[in-house]
Amino acid sequence: MLSNFFDPGSAPMFIKFITTGGTIDKIYFDDLSQFEVGESQMQHILAEGLVGFEFEIVPLMHKDSLEVDDNDRKLLHDYIEKDAASLFVITHGTDSMAQTAEALRDLEGRTIVLTGALTPARFRTTDAMFNIGMAVAAAQTAKPGVYIAMSGQVFEAGTVQKNRAENRFETA
Amino acid sequence: MLSNFFDPGSAPMFIKFITTGGTIDKIYFDDLSQFEVGESQMQHILAEGLVGFEFEIVPLMHKDSLEVDDNDRKLLHDYIEKDAASLFVITHGTDSMAQTAEALRDLEGRTIVLTGALTPARFRTTDAMFNIGMAVAAAQTAKPGVYIAMSGQVFEAGTVQKNRAENRFETA
Amino acid sequence: MLSNFFDPGSAPMFIKFITTGGTIDKIYFDDLSQFEVGESQMQHILAEGLVGFEFEIVPLMHKDSLEVDDNDRKLLHDYIEKDAASLFVITHGTDSMAQTAEALRDLEGRTIVLTGALTPARFRTTDAMFNIGMAVAAAQTAKPGVYIAMSGQVFEAGTVQKNRAENRFETA
Amino acid sequence: MLSNFFDPGSAPMFIKFITTGGTIDKIYFDDLSQFEVGESQMQHILAEGLVGFEFEIVPLMHKDSLEVDDNDRKLLHDYIEKDAASLFVITHGTDSMAQTAEALRDLEGRTIVLTGALTPARFRTTDAMFNIGMAVAAAQTAKPGVYIAMSGQVFEAGTVQKNRAENRFETA
Repeated sequence: MLSNFFDPGSAPMFIKFITTGGTIDKIYFDDLSQFEVGESQMQHILAEGLVGFEFEIVPLMHKDSLEVDDNDRKLLHDYIEKDAASLFVITHGTDSMAQTAEALRDLEGRTIVLTGALTPARFRTTDAMFNIGMAVAAAQTAKPGVYIAMSGQVFEAGTVQKNRAENRFETA
Repeated sequence: MLSNFFDPGSAPMFIKFITTGGTIDKIYFDDLSQFEVGESQMQHILAEGLVGFEFEIVPLMHKDSLEVDDNDRKLLHDYIEKDAASLFVITHGTDSMAQTAEALRDLEGRTIVLTGALTPARFRTTDAMFNIGMAVAAAQTAKPGVYIAMSGQVFEAGTVQKNRAENRFETA
Repeated sequence: MLSNFFDPGSAPMFIKFITTGGTIDKIYFDDLSQFEVGESQMQHILAEGLVGFEFEIVPLMHKDSLEVDDNDRKLLHDYIEKDAASLFVITHGTDSMAQTAEALRDLEGRTIVLTGALTPARFRTTDAMFNIGMAVAAAQTAKPGVYIAMSGQVFEAGTVQKNRAENRFETA
Repeated sequence: MLSNFFDPGSAPMFIKFITTGGTIDKIYFDDLSQFEVGESQMQHILAEGLVGFEFEIVPLMHKDSLEVDDNDRKLLHDYIEKDAASLFVITHGTDSMAQTAEALRDLEGRTIVLTGALTPARFRTTDAMFNIGMAVAAAQTAKPGVYIAMSGQVFEAGTVQKNRAENRFETA
């Protein structure tokens, strides 16, 4: 069977959420301040989504997408490799999400879904809720592998890029 | 292959959305009025989700969950059976969503995901965006079949019930 | 001087908020429930408004506008009469707000502003925040008297009515 | 009579809105962009407030509070001086709002209320709606003069300052 679809007869579903920063968690202070990465909005989003499964949220980094480097990717890779969970949702800045997804492709036996937002979760109109919903569903219905859930689509790592001019994710 | 996972080399992904009413589309007028099912919020939700795939929204009914009867289920069943799409997301009232899902189980070769909301989409805090995000991801990543995406989980039709006392969906 | 405009040299401004129910505090449960008056949203609205003055919120009733009768109006009248505050903001259902305002007109030496909402405060799009902001400003800038702050306007009690067909307040 | 309180027997109330930029109209693009002043949210706020009076919105500048200089203040002063309206609401960045208010104090026969927001209007939680509501009420109930409506209070120009450490407006 190629799918790791949640088996209702098995143990309760558990998803490990790892937050790394990015637009989804951007906050704004005032005229003298920059727009900065703030505390993760994940807890609020899952509460609003009225989720009934078990989960844990790990804030691993607070970085803008463009500040994420290979050391950060190794840190993330090692964290997942040593973790007992099999379902992961990772929030990440959008500009380097595709590269981070590729850096995780060798991790086997896990379903890893990266997502984020093109507009901060604290905005009144934002793709954050929709994208986290997609990632949560993809984590439990897609077969093991690494995916990006953005722009209403679930892409396999290595097949996707951000089209900056159009501000959307598309097949690479 | 058991999965109909979206193949980036194939034709653009297309999802047919069918709205039938329920809490997700509830609106409120004023002290003299009842809370009624209004126009579908689907268009707004997909716009906010910044989706990049092709879709069509069909408002088939405007019914409270408890008003949906076997004739309505037959109407929905026949609509899907005659439709050329292979991916369907159906919004439905929560109190009879499980029964409608079961009534569609004999439809083969399609991935059909039912969802809705426990709080109207027009509310400031609502599970609607999260649930539609889940349904859109499940439609493209789960193998053909009939599913319910609610309470943060993607359940197979026939294995799920609404726990009214706890106001959540759970394994039956 | 006809105005009781807040004097920066005097004691800190204090506003007494009295909530009586109405659309502003309407909540929605589910398909089997009615839309009901819930806990007051006033605390949340004042927090979001980042107000810096002193206040107290008194939930005096939880009634639909159409359920408010002369006994309720006497209760409200007596409460204000015995209270030491001089600035009052009262939230009230819209369909009988004008009558309640008239019933308070003999109370002298106080600035009393009634307001509410045509759409529940819990909705994503609602006039509740705007109206409470208006009422708070009118309470501190208008001369003593009884007012209704709705539809972007501050009307004196006795000069205003709700136009139900147009769903707005206007000069009577 | 010291008050210019809206007289229901007179011509319909008209408010001239002038937007100059500031946090209230801040928008966010993406990781490579700065947080910038965008199009005014005033139209949306007044629509959500369900206002029933006549108004016009003039976008005079798109400036951060700290970029507003004496030339800008002269431009604003001259605009108001030549305008036929008697009620003005001006949105402005918060860090120099008090100075701009003082620069308008010699304008007689008009009620001018400056306001803005400590959090962008596009945020899910924002003081923008509340503050515009306050400004609209103050414009029609306060006697002619120049005011700042922020932090739940209506201050007279020359008596108010922003306390940056506490992120609120208070008596100077």
